[in-house]
Amino acid sequence: MRLERLGERGLIRRIRHTLGSDGPGVRVGIGDDAAVLEPTPGAWLLATTDLVIEDVHFRRRSAGPADIGWKAMAVNLSDIAAMGGTPRFALVALACPEDTEVEDVDLFYEGLTAAAAPHGVRVVGGDTGASPGGWIANVTLLGEMLGQPRLRSDARPGDLIAVSGTLGRAAAGLSVLEAARRPDLPDDVLDEVARAHLRPIARVSEGKWLGSAEGVHALIDLSDGLATDLGHIAAESGVTARVDLPRLPISVSARAVAQALGLDPLELATTGGEDYELLFTADPSAIDALTAGLRSATGAAVTLIGEISPGTPGVLFLDAAGRAVDVGQGYEHFHG
Amino acid sequence: MRLERLGERGLIRRIRHTLGSDGPGVRVGIGDDAAVLEPTPGAWLLATTDLVIEDVHFRRRSAGPADIGWKAMAVNLSDIAAMGGTPRFALVALACPEDTEVEDVDLFYEGLTAAAAPHGVRVVGGDTGASPGGWIANVTLLGEMLGQPRLRSDARPGDLIAVSGTLGRAAAGLSVLEAARRPDLPDDVLDEVARAHLRPIARVSEGKWLGSAEGVHALIDLSDGLATDLGHIAAESGVTARVDLPRLPISVSARAVAQALGLDPLELATTGGEDYELLFTADPSAIDALTAGLRSATGAAVTLIGEISPGTPGVLFLDAAGRAVDVGQGYEHFHG
Repeated sequence: MRLERLGERGLIRRIRHTLGSDGPGVRVGIGDDAAVLEPTPGAWLLATTDLVIEDVHFRRRSAGPADIGWKAMAVNLSDIAAMGGTPRFALVALACPEDTEVEDVDLFYEGLTAAAAPHGVRVVGGDTGASPGGWIANVTLLGEMLGQPRLRSDARPGDLIAVSGTLGRAAAGLSVLEAARRPDLPDDVLDEVARAHLRPIARVSEGKWLGSAEGVHALIDLSDGLATDLGHIAAESGVTARVDLPRLPISVSARAVAQALGLDPLELATTGGEDYELLFTADPSAIDALTAGLRSATGAAVTLIGEISPGTPGVLFLDAAGRAVDVGQGYEHFHG
Repeated sequence: MRLERLGERGLIRRIRHTLGSDGPGVRVGIGDDAAVLEPTPGAWLLATTDLVIEDVHFRRRSAGPADIGWKAMAVNLSDIAAMGGTPRFALVALACPEDTEVEDVDLFYEGLTAAAAPHGVRVVGGDTGASPGGWIANVTLLGEMLGQPRLRSDARPGDLIAVSGTLGRAAAGLSVLEAARRPDLPDDVLDEVARAHLRPIARVSEGKWLGSAEGVHALIDLSDGLATDLGHIAAESGVTARVDLPRLPISVSARAVAQALGLDPLELATTGGEDYELLFTADPSAIDALTAGLRSATGAAVTLIGEISPGTPGVLFLDAAGRAVDVGQGYEHFHG
């Protein structure tokens, strides 16, 4: 059945039935003028929003409705993780062409809840409508934080710079999906990088753990790429961030894709964006305990990639010989 | 200057500079991964979101950027008012074509803050990006409520049905803006109805007052039209809502437009939508005090238009002779 036949009220009933919306802290979910929620006493309220648009943030050729839903949720989960918080409630707005099949809308919400449910996040409200062009989705995510949120401005001279997981996979995945020809690489490599692009895993448990750990200072998620996101920390903290390029944990699969497609793996890792790993700065005396503790609590590996120093706010990338390297600018949403 | 030249980071700096984002309850506003807010102890948290899309919700021919911003905020303010709550924090996502003039983006935020500022609402975060088509905006509004929120499901048999202000102006305004020829009516009439469509005034003070007043039961705002919105109250409360059509406070200007364009004023008032008046049900013993109290506190007029009774959930519109009248279906976001 197509959306234009089901109608808006039919669609809302369907969404409400599929998602439910009761849960801890939800007094009123989907179905009134606004959701009514019960905040945790004494907690900070965290709020973030992301708008994703067909042919800007994804292409229907490569991203199915479930992928779109998943990613729209995941990028917001990652923002809450980047504060050290716990995600709780989501508001989801979706606009599709009128001839969209209702089953595709179901898949969108299935993908979205598949990303959200493991973290106990409930969809408590939203909006639906017709789009004159492609798919448009907006997710707003509310989270909470009992201690102090970790800000971009919290880096201090002397801090070490650390990153979770590996870098470059999502950018490699995008390159594969956009390539004119399928690169000559094993299926599992191509699947891994495509999945990193289409179904990123937000580091929610890792963010919560780091958010309450001793010695963690600035914290951010890698959405726009290491160069840009570390640049935010440097700018907001008023410090210089030095990164030793040979230490970057570039994904083996990303390296393979880079070689097959004639790309620079360093560029994928520093400016590609969308890896949704966590980048943080920490007191050197705490770093061993943090690395071991995070791995033990969540399984995530941590790699030290550089150091914070006083000086002109900005990021310095150094090669093996200690020479500054220009790695480019990261993702820019308006292309001049 | 065009957006593609300013770039995303330049735009965010500009927005952050224009809007500021500190204020009561704002620990961190625009500029980190998520906003950090301090909820009022003991208050319910209210949350609502609306997605507005060019050529679905507005046309650039008739709506300037400031109108778009104003309305995107106002419809959300109205949703918080419809719970009886106090609006507090907004997240604003905006996507425009790359060749959009930055001054137009400034106007969008100016219109938005002009609607929000009188109510002490702060923009604490958001998202910006390019749109492959027209303008797309999403506003999420968070509010608070110390007492019990007024729900659509709170109507009780015996309640009287009341509405603030007048009906039909926004639909009349839309008809004027979409008409092939300017109707032969005085400027002030045309301006009034066009403004009701483009710059609706959310009944924020009225909603807060009704939300804490004795005897108010169900409360909703008129976004999709009386037939649809009262239908929500009837369905959620499991009651029949009877409306006496001759009692509807149809705007004099809406009547004039209806006559000039050959439209049915009753249809404008019942199914036109977007008047953003408040519709509520109340204990008959409290209604005089409510009417006088609301007028005294906010200046808003209240008109009694019908009564709630037990029976099949639904809305009955009765003419002067007491005959049931079919007034149509109200605004439907997907047109079959």
